[in-house]
Amino acid sequence: SRSIRLAVVPGDGIGPEVVAEGLKVLDALGLTIEQTVYELGAAYWHKTGEVLPDATLEEIRGHDAILLGAVGDPSVPSGVLERGLLLKLRFELDHYINLRPVRLYPGVGTPLAGVRPEDIDMMVVREGTEGLYAGAGGVLRKGTPQEIATQESINTAFGVERTVRYAFELAARRPRKKLTLVHKNNVLVYAGDLWSRTVDAVAKEFTDVDVDYCHVDAATMYFVSQPARFDVIVTDNLFGDIITDLGAAVAGGIGLAASGNLNPSGAAPSMFEPVHGSAPDIAGQGKADPTATVLSVALLLDHLGLADEARRVEQAVADDIIERQGAWAARSTREAGDDIAERVAG
Amino acid sequence: SRSIRLAVVPGDGIGPEVVAEGLKVLDALGLTIEQTVYELGAAYWHKTGEVLPDATLEEIRGHDAILLGAVGDPSVPSGVLERGLLLKLRFELDHYINLRPVRLYPGVGTPLAGVRPEDIDMMVVREGTEGLYAGAGGVLRKGTPQEIATQESINTAFGVERTVRYAFELAARRPRKKLTLVHKNNVLVYAGDLWSRTVDAVAKEFTDVDVDYCHVDAATMYFVSQPARFDVIVTDNLFGDIITDLGAAVAGGIGLAASGNLNPSGAAPSMFEPVHGSAPDIAGQGKADPTATVLSVALLLDHLGLADEARRVEQAVADDIIERQGAWAARSTREAGDDIAERVAG
Ligand SMILES: CC(C)[C@H](C(=O)O)[C@@H](O)C(=O)O
Ligand SMILES: CC(C)[C@H](C(=O)O)[C@@H](O)C(=O)O
Repeated sequence: SRSIRLAVVPGDGIGPEVVAEGLKVLDALGLTIEQTVYELGAAYWHKTGEVLPDATLEEIRGHDAILLGAVGDPSVPSGVLERGLLLKLRFELDHYINLRPVRLYPGVGTPLAGVRPEDIDMMVVREGTEGLYAGAGGVLRKGTPQEIATQESINTAFGVERTVRYAFELAARRPRKKLTLVHKNNVLVYAGDLWSRTVDAVAKEFTDVDVDYCHVDAATMYFVSQPARFDVIVTDNLFGDIITDLGAAVAGGIGLAASGNLNPSGAAPSMFEPVHGSAPDIAGQGKADPTATVLSVALLLDHLGLADEARRVEQAVADDIIERQGAWAARSTREAGDDIAERVAG
Repeated sequence: SRSIRLAVVPGDGIGPEVVAEGLKVLDALGLTIEQTVYELGAAYWHKTGEVLPDATLEEIRGHDAILLGAVGDPSVPSGVLERGLLLKLRFELDHYINLRPVRLYPGVGTPLAGVRPEDIDMMVVREGTEGLYAGAGGVLRKGTPQEIATQESINTAFGVERTVRYAFELAARRPRKKLTLVHKNNVLVYAGDLWSRTVDAVAKEFTDVDVDYCHVDAATMYFVSQPARFDVIVTDNLFGDIITDLGAAVAGGIGLAASGNLNPSGAAPSMFEPVHGSAPDIAGQGKADPTATVLSVALLLDHLGLADEARRVEQAVADDIIERQGAWAARSTREAGDDIAERVAG
């Protein structure tokens, strides 16, 4: 069988713990995997003063995919690791699709009253390489009463179009075939207009997809009052960041939310990571839920064309959730990984 | 008794209906009010091609306060009325505080399971005159595959500091004395750093206020999973827009969410409006809930120093909610206004 060259970046906090379980589940599929582990994150930065050396980035490029745990630690100034490692990987490897399923698994508790699993089943297609994440901006007269700080959102037809096209292709493959653009085009008129025009243009090629528009502020209301309104959402980098955390919360918590940072062209490896952060407060205690990482592994398998394996992993998670109902807190990170891996091995 | 010069902008959609009930409740207090009604909005734009003439703006300036219904209509391109009327008023009249209570009234249904009224009681202090709302940005090579659209967030020490100071003063007056900065300072590093440094600096003057920080994405999760975490939130214009719609949703819906666009200096009139929009789909049918407008009137009274009157209005709303429980849909906009006004009149 084909061998998968996997770059593993366990990262900070609970990252290493959940990544170990993700790898365990991957192993249970019986695939041949060549792993390279990259010990990047807070400790590496403290030791070397570097976040992601160019040579390491080049090595990572030579893999089929990346599995990342979490990045960020209170001992490091906010933004250093996030921008220097996570965002740097997304930008350098051109992960222009940040794919985030928002799905309520049967048996999972949601904070929303009266919502059933079939009411929450969406895919958020977040643009990954533009917008306010471009890092453009600056500061003038810092620390004085005349200080001005700017941040610039950069949006290109190139970047928006490829994202919108990906979202339409995804929507066309789903039973409901519905696509919603989430933006704030009544205020962010230049960027919003580019997004709206692009959706209108690409829609002409996908006449069987229902298209609508929702302001981001209203979208957050619908996430809690009427989540079934959404099927596929396409949105910019920042709005996608915000609504997918909200999506994770309504779908039973960040412990289950998976994501794929995709370069669909295949020119560079895609990266898979749980949506949750490094959670330093519970790190090293075996308390973290590895399910989000395991579901990210399923996205990884799908991306590599191993759809059967992806479905096996998802099914194992779904069965595990049903069975563990109510008894969750009693199980350690490792036990949870063992349980899911056992099901996968079947 | 003192006479209040009130500028009234009913606006579009359900705006005129809910404003009529807000005025009814104001009348019931027995105050002397001199009203000037400004028929601005979609119809005025279609007729004249103008949104807010300079002369009208100057007239509006001569009032003690503004009551606004809602702005926006599908017959007008997105952004024209929002930016030309609503945002223009906020910017020209220097409404640098956008104050939005998020409070679950006893008897109101929330989409969240197991949440009690005491769990949702926060004040969001949204900056109102900067950030991505400044309108800075542009487009290059529009309509070509090389198009670039930008939006710039502009943040000044002046604007951030006065907002943060207002929020601290508010937090210091509340029982919990807790202030949370909501931002995204790991990505929006220049603006985030200005906000964080400003909060740290002003905190030194308010040693009895507990201060913490929360990324906007995580904040949306806490709004649904743990809303009691928040007391006073201070945040920028766009994040404030997003989280207050979410706040309205978790606190029982947009039909109850009030807001004040404040110029605390008193140099120009402040403006009060429901958070909801013009809802063209239900306009003219007597279906809109006027409560958000009535609660905005309470904020108006507070702003004018009429605290007793403000409490009477709030109490009337609270009592009305308890009594109408379950029978809501049976009552028209006008009947709801009558019921609340009657209680206010005592
Ligand atoms: C850690 C942070 C930079 C990151 C983001 O904002 O994209 C995270 O919130 C996410 O959603 O993956
Ligand atoms: C209508 C729109 C411009 C406005 C805003 O974004 O501020 C609205 O959403 C609000 O929250 O008052």
